[in-house]
Amino acid sequence: MKRPQLFISIEEAQNRLLRVLSERVSLSTERIHIVDSLSRVASELIRAPMSRPRTNLSAVDGYAVRSLDTTGASIFNPIELIVKSVLKPGEDPDKVCIEPGYAIRVHTGAPVPCKADAVIMDEDVKVQGSTILIQRSVAPGSNIILRGEDIEEGDVIVKPGLLIQPAHIAALASLGIDTINVYRKIRVSLIAIGDELIEPGHSLNYSKEFNSSTYIIYAQLVKDGIFQVRYAGIVPDDVKTILTTIKSEFERGSDIIITTGGTGVGETDKVSELLEKYSSLIFRGVKMRPGRMTSASLMYGKPIIHLSGFPVAAWAGYELILRPAIAKWIGIEGFERPVIYAYLSRRVPNISGYNSIIRVALTIKNGEYYAEPYMLRGSGVISSLLKTHGYIIIPENIEGFEEGEKVPVYLYR
Amino acid sequence: MKRPQLFISIEEAQNRLLRVLSERVSLSTERIHIVDSLSRVASELIRAPMSRPRTNLSAVDGYAVRSLDTTGASIFNPIELIVKSVLKPGEDPDKVCIEPGYAIRVHTGAPVPCKADAVIMDEDVKVQGSTILIQRSVAPGSNIILRGEDIEEGDVIVKPGLLIQPAHIAALASLGIDTINVYRKIRVSLIAIGDELIEPGHSLNYSKEFNSSTYIIYAQLVKDGIFQVRYAGIVPDDVKTILTTIKSEFERGSDIIITTGGTGVGETDKVSELLEKYSSLIFRGVKMRPGRMTSASLMYGKPIIHLSGFPVAAWAGYELILRPAIAKWIGIEGFERPVIYAYLSRRVPNISGYNSIIRVALTIKNGEYYAEPYMLRGSGVISSLLKTHGYIIIPENIEGFEEGEKVPVYLYR
Repeated sequence: MKRPQLFISIEEAQNRLLRVLSERVSLSTERIHIVDSLSRVASELIRAPMSRPRTNLSAVDGYAVRSLDTTGASIFNPIELIVKSVLKPGEDPDKVCIEPGYAIRVHTGAPVPCKADAVIMDEDVKVQGSTILIQRSVAPGSNIILRGEDIEEGDVIVKPGLLIQPAHIAALASLGIDTINVYRKIRVSLIAIGDELIEPGHSLNYSKEFNSSTYIIYAQLVKDGIFQVRYAGIVPDDVKTILTTIKSEFERGSDIIITTGGTGVGETDKVSELLEKYSSLIFRGVKMRPGRMTSASLMYGKPIIHLSGFPVAAWAGYELILRPAIAKWIGIEGFERPVIYAYLSRRVPNISGYNSIIRVALTIKNGEYYAEPYMLRGSGVISSLLKTHGYIIIPENIEGFEEGEKVPVYLYR
Repeated sequence: MKRPQLFISIEEAQNRLLRVLSERVSLSTERIHIVDSLSRVASELIRAPMSRPRTNLSAVDGYAVRSLDTTGASIFNPIELIVKSVLKPGEDPDKVCIEPGYAIRVHTGAPVPCKADAVIMDEDVKVQGSTILIQRSVAPGSNIILRGEDIEEGDVIVKPGLLIQPAHIAALASLGIDTINVYRKIRVSLIAIGDELIEPGHSLNYSKEFNSSTYIIYAQLVKDGIFQVRYAGIVPDDVKTILTTIKSEFERGSDIIITTGGTGVGETDKVSELLEKYSSLIFRGVKMRPGRMTSASLMYGKPIIHLSGFPVAAWAGYELILRPAIAKWIGIEGFERPVIYAYLSRRVPNISGYNSIIRVALTIKNGEYYAEPYMLRGSGVISSLLKTHGYIIIPENIEGFEEGEKVPVYLYR
């Protein structure tokens, strides 16, 4: 296959897929309980319905006072205040005001009554029956957590596209919100194509290979949390059977089908024939290695991504084309991989005309990361993913990265 | 609560918990299918039962030859070889050898027959009926992927303690392994303690607070993937009810109970009484902020972690004490948070005698990370987790970090 000039850039591939996803797949939303919303994508804007704290709170155990009442207090000139008991449970602190000359008992985290603008710690008062003696003046605001200090009423807590994390769930709970609108999961069917494939757990002869590419994609989809994944099994290199399986998966309600395998140009590779005769092409081949045979097409009006039968190339097609396209489509915030910057431990040449996806193992020395490129580059070399922590991308217009160059590394997790 | 001298270090707290977990909780294993093994912890050593590739493979479409047969070939002196068809499906390539003067048709990824030590690409031969003309000699090893190049028979693929990722699943599949022994999930029950708590979704009066701490811990436990989590609900500040709930959760089979709330020293905080009268103390209070009231005890022979009722302090207790203790206990490899190194955008003072857990927001400039500390430090300030990407730890014996200092940042995800 010597025609890189026909291949498109990674970004162009993502964008074409994005267009098709926007036009062809409609993602309804559903209202779910917040405890089930981890790693789901929010589809609504949620503003805080109240402030947090709702009212001024005491930061300590002590006495709420008007700070003015304490002016001039000292050991030699202690000021006496009359103690009133705590606010009654359920009483609105904005409606129970403190009068001059009084102090109200408060515990840590308890509301401070209105007109009180400071809290004196237990350690700083002398209790005398129903009064306290204050031997030091307090500044306004002392030991008070202000209403809205954490979250102000009206603050945006969740935006459409947010990938929901534990802290968002806690924030919603703390504001009394127990349900949230999220996009429904994207229904993906996986089909493994190839006469030569058998499932692990069976016995092998020399014309067979264990299916592994569908497994890495399946696990990756599950890990990403926004998919409802179905594995449709292995189908042989027979166009009719492949078509029937694709049709039946779409009829079951799949939004997207992912095939692995059959993307070569040998006589037994049937994706070419599918693409030429039965589908409307979205793209065929991307300027990247591994994963250059990654293609996409429309069949029965829905998008199909054709990933390589080689596990690392299949992984690259998902990681660099489909996953970012889906993130753009839904507008997911917080879906990108964590990036670290590392010094390359050796020169890495590029393959002319391609973006090279190089897997690297990381080490840390004196607060700096160093990246050791994994030397075996084959698209079937699974050890390249097992023994590394992330990957770098050498852009197509660059001859390579030099030893010692600082480059961004995208972490797998 | 002015007695930091009684508090123990973060590491000591982890280690005490580790000891109790090892002695009191027994974690059996179960055999599951590899497709269900994502984010589970392996409990067995698995070595590759075969090499990958199993046999030498062709890297191209072409003809397998003995390289010696091509010596001296040129445009002026083409060498003719007799073409034999491909290996029959299922034929052992180690038993079908190539004879001198012959070439065998091979496709990309197909086994190379024995005695063939090179493959000539289609582009480099002229086909003439049942023979090919070779116009260039080939070196031994050309276009051949060597047996075991990716994985050698006997290589360790999975070790006990490995947190299983998509690439491990693919590697196991590619080697024909369809099941794996993993530790069963750790059964955790969550109990929220506090008269003042109500669940989100209900209406509030001024003596009530929405429960949020249990929610952040629940979501975090689910996210970590190795737990089977049960939320037992809110119990009031009543020692009898708390004890009954704890007993019933352990009877249901919980390995660990986590409580949130009630850890203060006010009259209504009941964890103190529990710890003093009904349990055997593991530790009480840790030199860290937020989260200094984090405690642990043994009841009914099983460990209980008492986290703060303030959501950020509860989060810190899980993140810095329980989670690392569990990782050490099972020996989980790959459970640590990703770390990046960042320059602090401003000075951050420590609180004397404590480890400060400071949440930071990250920005990137010219391949360097900068960390902006979130200024509100309160243990209930949920916005500090919403608006940041990770945290730094200022050790207890350090007065603070300086502006411009490069520090490790632990990412939430």
